Amino acid sequence: MTVRTHFMDMALRLGRRGLGRVAPNPAVGCVLVKEDRIIGRGWTQPGGRPHAETQALQSAVENMAGATAYVSLEPCAHQGATPSCATALIDAGIARVVVAMEDPDPRTAGQGVARMRAAGLQVDLGILAEQAQRDHQGFVLRLTRDRPLVSGKIAHSADGRIASATGHSQWITGSLARAHGHALRAHHDAILIGGGTWRADHPRLDCRLPGLADRSPQKVLLSHGVPEDQPDGWWTSAGLLPDHQPPYDLDDLLAALARRGITRLLVEGGAATIAAFMRVGLMDRLYLYTAPKLIGEDGRASVGALGVRDVMADAPYLKVIETRTLGEDALAVYERG
Amino acid sequence: MTVRTHFMDMALRLGRRGLGRVAPNPAVGCVLVKEDRIIGRGWTQPGGRPHAETQALQSAVENMAGATAYVSLEPCAHQGATPSCATALIDAGIARVVVAMEDPDPRTAGQGVARMRAAGLQVDLGILAEQAQRDHQGFVLRLTRDRPLVSGKIAHSADGRIASATGHSQWITGSLARAHGHALRAHHDAILIGGGTWRADHPRLDCRLPGLADRSPQKVLLSHGVPEDQPDGWWTSAGLLPDHQPPYDLDDLLAALARRGITRLLVEGGAATIAAFMRVGLMDRLYLYTAPKLIGEDGRASVGALGVRDVMADAPYLKVIETRTLGEDALAVYERG
Repeated sequence: MTVRTHFMDMALRLGRRGLGRVAPNPAVGCVLVKEDRIIGRGWTQPGGRPHAETQALQSAVENMAGATAYVSLEPCAHQGATPSCATALIDAGIARVVVAMEDPDPRTAGQGVARMRAAGLQVDLGILAEQAQRDHQGFVLRLTRDRPLVSGKIAHSADGRIASATGHSQWITGSLARAHGHALRAHHDAILIGGGTWRADHPRLDCRLPGLADRSPQKVLLSHGVPEDQPDGWWTSAGLLPDHQPPYDLDDLLAALARRGITRLLVEGGAATIAAFMRVGLMDRLYLYTAPKLIGEDGRASVGALGVRDVMADAPYLKVIETRTLGEDALAVYERG
Repeated sequence: MTVRTHFMDMALRLGRRGLGRVAPNPAVGCVLVKEDRIIGRGWTQPGGRPHAETQALQSAVENMAGATAYVSLEPCAHQGATPSCATALIDAGIARVVVAMEDPDPRTAGQGVARMRAAGLQVDLGILAEQAQRDHQGFVLRLTRDRPLVSGKIAHSADGRIASATGHSQWITGSLARAHGHALRAHHDAILIGGGTWRADHPRLDCRLPGLADRSPQKVLLSHGVPEDQPDGWWTSAGLLPDHQPPYDLDDLLAALARRGITRLLVEGGAATIAAFMRVGLMDRLYLYTAPKLIGEDGRASVGALGVRDVMADAPYLKVIETRTLGEDALAVYERG
């Protein structure tokens, strides 16, 4: 890892702190470095403002003249209540700006970089761009495709079962994997479940982790009928879709969520709901927690029917982007291949 | 890793070369070390003789007086056509013997160690014993429980499916995982499949790897009827069990295999056969190859019905003993927890 990727990696990690609490804005991180020492850092604050660069400049512990700024997304070029971040970096005397990726927002879209270069700053673009694209994927998809990033979350046995034949599922995975799943919720803007899962489990879908209890995202119910016992504050597909007839048009559903500012949606089940998104190619990412247990084919499958005939030609192909061990369980994160 | 565990690890690795071709004997490895240099090495030869120690002594490139022998199983104390290995090590002038674990064979069972100590050799016992017990588990189970080690092998999708609804399964895993599966066959004495798998796939169950084609193990068919198209040389449950009525008594079946010298049995399927061994607690180990694909619940499950009701109380609990990446696929090796 070079010095440049080291500091950009730090900026990306800082930026991720905002995921799930800055929508529809991007969750950006910024590190200010002078003579290889960090003199300031910042990340997008809840609600989307202040921006990461403003936070970093305000946190600086010494004169910023000649410093390098590492930013996980192109500094904005559009002035709002405050000057644009590109201008703020120029005015602060920053000599060099290292940027992970260009901001697709048409109000910036290269103009931030252009303005800084015109002012004589050195700008390096595209450092750790692959990771940045992954972190900003929800923000980008909402801007460019009118939909949020859709991730699925499954906790299942080694043979792909989420419950026994009697519906018993507590607990398949261990406490570390469950805590990771709660943190995953905190990093999404909304969580969606299907009506079957609601009726079976009445899940609260909260983020039950110390210090993160205020970060429980918006709940969304995908169901034909609106259950009488639905908790206050949930959104329902009936409220989101004007033509609310199954099979639901998931494109329309996601567009409605994007219009309400959702950039990152976590689909927690059940198996039929996960499969519905998968079948139409609208599941971008999958978090698969696997426990070292077997439940057998009389248990309930983790992924509903997909209509696969030829394994090579039809089976949704995934790409592993991360694996980790969580106690006795394993987590694999997949992207659509 | 200390010097002692380093050389014992080498002895264990050498010993594993014999797995699948020395039954009913143990697959032992031996390294001779003098002043931290390896001066000889050996492993149990096909059929079980010569023993690892004999091979190592014969391979020695300099005088063995004062050397240390690392052996993955206690040197035998019983004299056959040739002197016992304990005696051979004494006669060669070996000063110290490091032994992974005691040989449970009643003809040795501590007498090898005792004889060497009586002759003035230093003997260290129990170095990397856990790994040695794993390697020798088939040999030990046959001696002490009248049955072979039973391992299951499954290649499935990330959601636990071994084929599509139409029975299509080529290919779920990639070429590296399939090659690993062939090598796994070579390290077993026998492979067992159920009648359903025979009728569906007519698998050859060979070890199709360059240089290992002669190491294809004995095939065993567990099926009520003996199919007319069964290839020559297979053993059938009808031939192994006097009272051949389903549900088969798997204890009796394994005892019959042990009597024929089988120490390591690989159960390759199908799902019902895997589940049958699992239900009665006779599946010691599971090799699970997982491909980054989804097939969905209309596909065929990898593990048959287990009758689990309460997940915590009933689901067979496994312990991960190894994980590795094989191309895009993952291999997890489990033991019964």
